[in-house]
Amino acid sequence: MAPSKAYQALERRYRRIALVGEAIGVLEWDGATVMPSGGAEARAEQTAMLSVIAHEMHTDPALADLLAAAEADGGGLDEWQAANLREMRRAWHHATAVPSDLVEAASKASSASEMCWRTARHDDDFARLRPHLQRVLDLTMEIARAKAAAFDLDPYDALLDGFEAGLRRAEIEPLFAELEAFLPDFLAEVLARQAAAGPALPLEGPFPPEKQKALGLKLMAAIGFDFAHGRLDESHHPFSSGVPEDARITTRYTAEDFQPALMAVLHETGHALYGRNLPKQWRYQPVGGAMGMVIHESQSLVVEMLACRSDAYLGFLAPQLAEAFDGDGDAWRPANLARHARRVARGLIRVDADEISYPLHVILRYRLEQDLLSGALALADLPAAWNEGMERLVGVRPPDDCDGYMQDAHWYGGHFGYFPTYTLGALAAAQLFESAGRAVDLPGSIARGDFRPLMAWLTDNVHRHGRRFESHDALLEAATGQPLQAGPFRRHLESRYGDG
Amino acid sequence: MAPSKAYQALERRYRRIALVGEAIGVLEWDGATVMPSGGAEARAEQTAMLSVIAHEMHTDPALADLLAAAEADGGGLDEWQAANLREMRRAWHHATAVPSDLVEAASKASSASEMCWRTARHDDDFARLRPHLQRVLDLTMEIARAKAAAFDLDPYDALLDGFEAGLRRAEIEPLFAELEAFLPDFLAEVLARQAAAGPALPLEGPFPPEKQKALGLKLMAAIGFDFAHGRLDESHHPFSSGVPEDARITTRYTAEDFQPALMAVLHETGHALYGRNLPKQWRYQPVGGAMGMVIHESQSLVVEMLACRSDAYLGFLAPQLAEAFDGDGDAWRPANLARHARRVARGLIRVDADEISYPLHVILRYRLEQDLLSGALALADLPAAWNEGMERLVGVRPPDDCDGYMQDAHWYGGHFGYFPTYTLGALAAAQLFESAGRAVDLPGSIARGDFRPLMAWLTDNVHRHGRRFESHDALLEAATGQPLQAGPFRRHLESRYGDG
Repeated sequence: MAPSKAYQALERRYRRIALVGEAIGVLEWDGATVMPSGGAEARAEQTAMLSVIAHEMHTDPALADLLAAAEADGGGLDEWQAANLREMRRAWHHATAVPSDLVEAASKASSASEMCWRTARHDDDFARLRPHLQRVLDLTMEIARAKAAAFDLDPYDALLDGFEAGLRRAEIEPLFAELEAFLPDFLAEVLARQAAAGPALPLEGPFPPEKQKALGLKLMAAIGFDFAHGRLDESHHPFSSGVPEDARITTRYTAEDFQPALMAVLHETGHALYGRNLPKQWRYQPVGGAMGMVIHESQSLVVEMLACRSDAYLGFLAPQLAEAFDGDGDAWRPANLARHARRVARGLIRVDADEISYPLHVILRYRLEQDLLSGALALADLPAAWNEGMERLVGVRPPDDCDGYMQDAHWYGGHFGYFPTYTLGALAAAQLFESAGRAVDLPGSIARGDFRPLMAWLTDNVHRHGRRFESHDALLEAATGQPLQAGPFRRHLESRYGDG
Repeated sequence: MAPSKAYQALERRYRRIALVGEAIGVLEWDGATVMPSGGAEARAEQTAMLSVIAHEMHTDPALADLLAAAEADGGGLDEWQAANLREMRRAWHHATAVPSDLVEAASKASSASEMCWRTARHDDDFARLRPHLQRVLDLTMEIARAKAAAFDLDPYDALLDGFEAGLRRAEIEPLFAELEAFLPDFLAEVLARQAAAGPALPLEGPFPPEKQKALGLKLMAAIGFDFAHGRLDESHHPFSSGVPEDARITTRYTAEDFQPALMAVLHETGHALYGRNLPKQWRYQPVGGAMGMVIHESQSLVVEMLACRSDAYLGFLAPQLAEAFDGDGDAWRPANLARHARRVARGLIRVDADEISYPLHVILRYRLEQDLLSGALALADLPAAWNEGMERLVGVRPPDDCDGYMQDAHWYGGHFGYFPTYTLGALAAAQLFESAGRAVDLPGSIARGDFRPLMAWLTDNVHRHGRRFESHDALLEAATGQPLQAGPFRRHLESRYGDG
């Protein structure tokens, strides 16, 4: 039995919506990498217009009729088509919950605010940025309320759902509670052990960005990144975008240290390979896309954290690092590199944080953004609340705002409800890596720089499924036998950083 | 009296169409400069979809109703609004003359064909490229026929009109006849004089691309290019795109000679400054755009040919060139640089051609493309016809196809009817420069590297008018007192290359 005409018409309509979304992605990539500052205003107009167009396609009453018709006679659909219809409905719910003018206003406000953030952060000038953030916050809350009413959820859950289908505070709270109960003591313990062992041997530079880039390109290729289908660029904040056939990842270089840029490259490569291995036969359809940000982040962290900071990989990496930067002696041996790659600190900056303290940075943001949205925390009180939270959770107090609450673009770009996915992604990464390790010899293959066994397992259990599964938990159950857990992450940290 | 509601609604609709067009421009810029080859297919899908969306906006019956209503009660419109309405109707005519599926098919065929051209030309492999070109040709002819029927024009005139409003063969023929009567003999005469004078002193390299780029950036800035509002990149073929606030120009470098890249930079800078000085109050409206390609090309050639190859500018340029490339001695003095910058040759390649032979390259293409479209010339016979024409007009026979009929992307990208605008642009450039020279001291200011007087005149007489004038001839009459003429171009050539 063939799928209904209504379903077929929906595939054509969602293909259009997907292509407009991809065009927006190109405009945003350009804006973050190569666009001169004076182009920002016109770019915001262009992006907002495409967002409105996609939104109008979604809110066309004829689309709602087609969805109802296709659902009513869904008998002719195979499993993938049925999942595609479910994902269409889900996307439709998110789109139609928000009126067009609000979509346009939020898109423009976020563009303007993020653009302001780029310079204001540098100048430590929150006064300039604050009205932008207030406007983004107000519009985000309006969106959250509209979605909450449409989905019968609370507003923050409605925002979470936009980043990962089915993600709720009710799932996050016990996981974060488990981390919060464990991590601060564990962090102190690892710091004490690290202090007792004395400092690692310094890695002497210089580290010219062009050499860092050349090494990054080489390692990307070794992991499986195909440069006929993607590129590496620079941006203020590393990110991954693009499409399966054309992955765009970025990093940023500092001449003082090669590690941040390199680790960002490995991280974003993990994202890119996920995109590259999505099911080609469902290209341009909702079910052919990636799962939400929890699973996406897990794919970057499997590569960066689980694989590339392992003893196996550092043994493979050490001679390549030494060659790239003319390094010599014990400092460049795997054991010393491991001390650098796994150095733990009470740091100010989330993106520079180690695996152990990173979740604490996230938990702070997760709490604060809920308070900002609910109005329990006024913007004027954000600096104090941030600094107090950092001191309590991470054990360090920001000396200035640019390394405090102004460090991340997320809020300024309107992304509230996104932060938790970083840490949930870390949990998922550990869970997937643990299961993959039971099926294939990861240390053996990674020690040879061979990522094919790991990637084959991930492709088979994650990538090729696109959005066939209803949620990250359903995917994880199929891949690992369990919904999202904190246990594998804890076991991973104890095994890598513990005293055993 | 305020403009009617219908007119106001039209402004909103055309703003949308403009923004989608700008998004397409970003996608195309990306495709030509940074996109990896594997991204071509997805990019073609994205671009085609946006083209279809813009086309559908244009063909919405409600838009036709609004146009009719606004025209019926046009009394409340000021001069600019009336011109805007006229340009809306013109754009509407072009859009609605062609059915949606043909727009989409042509967009995809052109993308695929142009992508194939990039490699096939390099491999001198017309067999691979020919089916693509045939398809583009067929679709272009379909478009031309559809427009011809709608406008009551012949098909080639209908294509010309898409590149410059009101441009017709009837205007081109006498101008090209005048050139064809004059240029071949003049070319022979100049070549003989050049041969008698002996070769110019060679300019010794090396010319590393990064030094060429640094010099190009410096000269762009001196002419008035603002890098907060634009950038310079590399592509297979130099071009200018972007928006007034974010001009994107490109060049290509060869280490053997700095002149091609530098002249391309100066040329594209002329295009960019036209875009930058368009009337801001009409941004995103049809009347706020640039005139067609004749006037656009005139703005690049005023800078590159008229200004930057003049004695005045070469005197300013000489010390900067010597400094950039560690040049020394007589070879780097203005008089010898002038012999390089004005070297005339019977060359194979249009984009490398001098001012005198360039129109002959264009006339060949102008004739051939009409024959290809009418079917009088089969694709299989194109190589022979090209080579014969080159021999007759320019006096040289291509030894291979890649330097013959495969040298230009235009036809492969579906741009038939575009070539004549290059030479008409050269005529317009000479005409405008002659008039500007009566109003301001061009040699004096250009000798100081000061382009402000020239740009002020061009802004006042060309740029700030956007599309307020109905045609290039109307604009030229207002600016110079005459419609497009060949006389000023001939006087310019005689003055620069003649025996006087």
